[in-house]
Amino acid sequence: MIRDCIENVRRKKPLVHNITNYVTVNDVANVLLACGASPIMSDDPEEVEEITSICGGLNINIGTLNKDTIPSMFLAGKKANKLGHKVLLDPVGAGASKLRTDTAFKLMKEIKLDAIRGNISEIKTLALGSGRTKGVDADVADAITEDSLDNAIAFTKAFAKKAGCIVAVTGAIDLVSDGDICYVIRNGREEMARITGTGCQLSAVMTAFLVANPDNELEAAAAAVCAMGLAGEIAWCRMQPYDGNSTYRNRIIDAICNMDGETLEEGAKYEIR
Amino acid sequence: MIRDCIENVRRKKPLVHNITNYVTVNDVANVLLACGASPIMSDDPEEVEEITSICGGLNINIGTLNKDTIPSMFLAGKKANKLGHKVLLDPVGAGASKLRTDTAFKLMKEIKLDAIRGNISEIKTLALGSGRTKGVDADVADAITEDSLDNAIAFTKAFAKKAGCIVAVTGAIDLVSDGDICYVIRNGREEMARITGTGCQLSAVMTAFLVANPDNELEAAAAAVCAMGLAGEIAWCRMQPYDGNSTYRNRIIDAICNMDGETLEEGAKYEIR
Amino acid sequence: MIRDCIENVRRKKPLVHNITNYVTVNDVANVLLACGASPIMSDDPEEVEEITSICGGLNINIGTLNKDTIPSMFLAGKKANKLGHKVLLDPVGAGASKLRTDTAFKLMKEIKLDAIRGNISEIKTLALGSGRTKGVDADVADAITEDSLDNAIAFTKAFAKKAGCIVAVTGAIDLVSDGDICYVIRNGREEMARITGTGCQLSAVMTAFLVANPDNELEAAAAAVCAMGLAGEIAWCRMQPYDGNSTYRNRIIDAICNMDGETLEEGAKYEIR
Repeated sequence: MIRDCIENVRRKKPLVHNITNYVTVNDVANVLLACGASPIMSDDPEEVEEITSICGGLNINIGTLNKDTIPSMFLAGKKANKLGHKVLLDPVGAGASKLRTDTAFKLMKEIKLDAIRGNISEIKTLALGSGRTKGVDADVADAITEDSLDNAIAFTKAFAKKAGCIVAVTGAIDLVSDGDICYVIRNGREEMARITGTGCQLSAVMTAFLVANPDNELEAAAAAVCAMGLAGEIAWCRMQPYDGNSTYRNRIIDAICNMDGETLEEGAKYEIR
Repeated sequence: MIRDCIENVRRKKPLVHNITNYVTVNDVANVLLACGASPIMSDDPEEVEEITSICGGLNINIGTLNKDTIPSMFLAGKKANKLGHKVLLDPVGAGASKLRTDTAFKLMKEIKLDAIRGNISEIKTLALGSGRTKGVDADVADAITEDSLDNAIAFTKAFAKKAGCIVAVTGAIDLVSDGDICYVIRNGREEMARITGTGCQLSAVMTAFLVANPDNELEAAAAAVCAMGLAGEIAWCRMQPYDGNSTYRNRIIDAICNMDGETLEEGAKYEIR
Repeated sequence: MIRDCIENVRRKKPLVHNITNYVTVNDVANVLLACGASPIMSDDPEEVEEITSICGGLNINIGTLNKDTIPSMFLAGKKANKLGHKVLLDPVGAGASKLRTDTAFKLMKEIKLDAIRGNISEIKTLALGSGRTKGVDADVADAITEDSLDNAIAFTKAFAKKAGCIVAVTGAIDLVSDGDICYVIRNGREEMARITGTGCQLSAVMTAFLVANPDNELEAAAAAVCAMGLAGEIAWCRMQPYDGNSTYRNRIIDAICNMDGETLEEGAKYEIR
């Protein structure tokens, strides 16, 4: 059950190694603490293997990749693979530069990933070798709508099968598939797009959920998506006149902090296709 | 009109490339989203030209410059020049170290800048080759007051003429000049100095305003300064007992998020000299 | 008196140079401003000596150390020593990787430190050459409790004597010793552990307190610990239903921002052993 997925995180308190961007890193750390996990950030090639060894999972986010941190992603990823740790890739901005696209492809090739989470433009880039992208945000033309839903589900399943891992495409409607079945999730609010880093936060939370639910990966990934979207809904209800995106950001993390299994179970809006 | 300047940002949603410091980068991203723009951060030499190509403007901030990001500033700046994109320089801490001062001078020499925004000590360093600076804050002895205003206006005009771009000197009184005329702006509150990064945020917002108002650059730059100062005033009115600088930070970004053209037009306090 | 320690910071406004991690750096800057100090962040080897020269103190935090910033820590540290500036080491994650442990040891050997602040696992690593660590958090087995207090005091005194500087071990019960006497501090709340960076913030604040109270270092270090813990208590009292760790983070910095000498004097809970 969805509720078990978050309760297992709170009970097991997984330590998650993040090689991530410096834009949203503080929110990533706080949201991991909010959901019951522990964060560690480390990206120097000399220590990443050792750091990832003491963790349960690895969250690789290429949001501000550079020549020093890219080798660390491979070193940590291979070590995590060797130890059987969960590894998630967030291909931030894949399609926006050759460096990002190439790095994401190479990570997919050389590291055994448990999950990939991105917006539709990023995932299309990985699936099709091309994709429209507006910097780090999805292109409007790519957006998943009720009209394009059937095609999007088929696309996500096919890519998950090809990639050999869970694929989560997040946006107005979220899709999470392991290649066979697909969770279609309708939690969240569009105002979340006006905050930087809700995607990065979700990737970190999803990594923690995968680590804490090793025998139930697909549901765990879907539960993480539901939790983040539901937090956006709960936080929106608390918005007061004159509040804006900065306060909304705080309240989303607060909502994760206060979310119990029952709240998540009742608030999760999904169907399985 | 000032009101058009912010409305154009909200309508055109410019994508702004930021090569910026890791201290205030999250607030910079959120304030860009708050004003209707989209942020992308990228500073690896291998990708900055490509990233800046998909953007409308480039915001160069030397707050935590290093040997890897300095070359990126030049590569991105030259590419942006070639494409006719707006480029802004925020010379954080110029005068505090030779590396900062030299880098700022070299950027001014090799990149065609559309605007420079800094505190009075930083701008004096660039104009006179020397300036008192207290780390990243302006020296009190340099502060622009009503008494020193006439001289400060003449100084700012002269430097803008020499630099060949808009110059914005921000502090208790803000001056924005293109060399011919000078906006004297009295928005803002002194308590904003107790938050890190209001200057960095303003530079990012100003870049977005310049991109969205290409035919009206001086007014756009002045409008950005008014917007940030007015946000500081609006946010201050919402402060409750026991609130401090962290809450104030959130409320300033919130105020930008909620600011429409009419609010800005009515709240902007400026004279043209 | 404890109250003088914070009042001196507010009066003298020390400039603190931080070579610190990118996870919590924004909070570190804002908390320094909150307590009346000024922050500057700089970590490029080419400028750190110059930057530290204009400051009053240096806060070295190895939270996301890398091959570029490690040399900067030594350059800045040696320069600060030469100038007689206060230097504090926060050995984040010492024990979690060889790079962290070795760097911390080397800093202790080559730089004359005025203070070391860490959690019990980090300090045990430095004192004993080994320590259990759960990433960047202390291991539960190491925690200082009322039962283990006498031993912990003896341990802290012995390590402070050996290290030749003030040692602050922070956790549920905080210990601050110069080798001869030991402050046992019972401010703070356990919920502070659910926010990233309260330790980093404390190290920065402690550096400012040391700079502003040069003739009273031990009391100043203890006062900083009391201030941070008391801020956690005051902030907790302001928590509303549905608030979580992100809001708590803001309110702690707010509480520092509003703390005067009298509040600190009355709220400080310590005994001297």
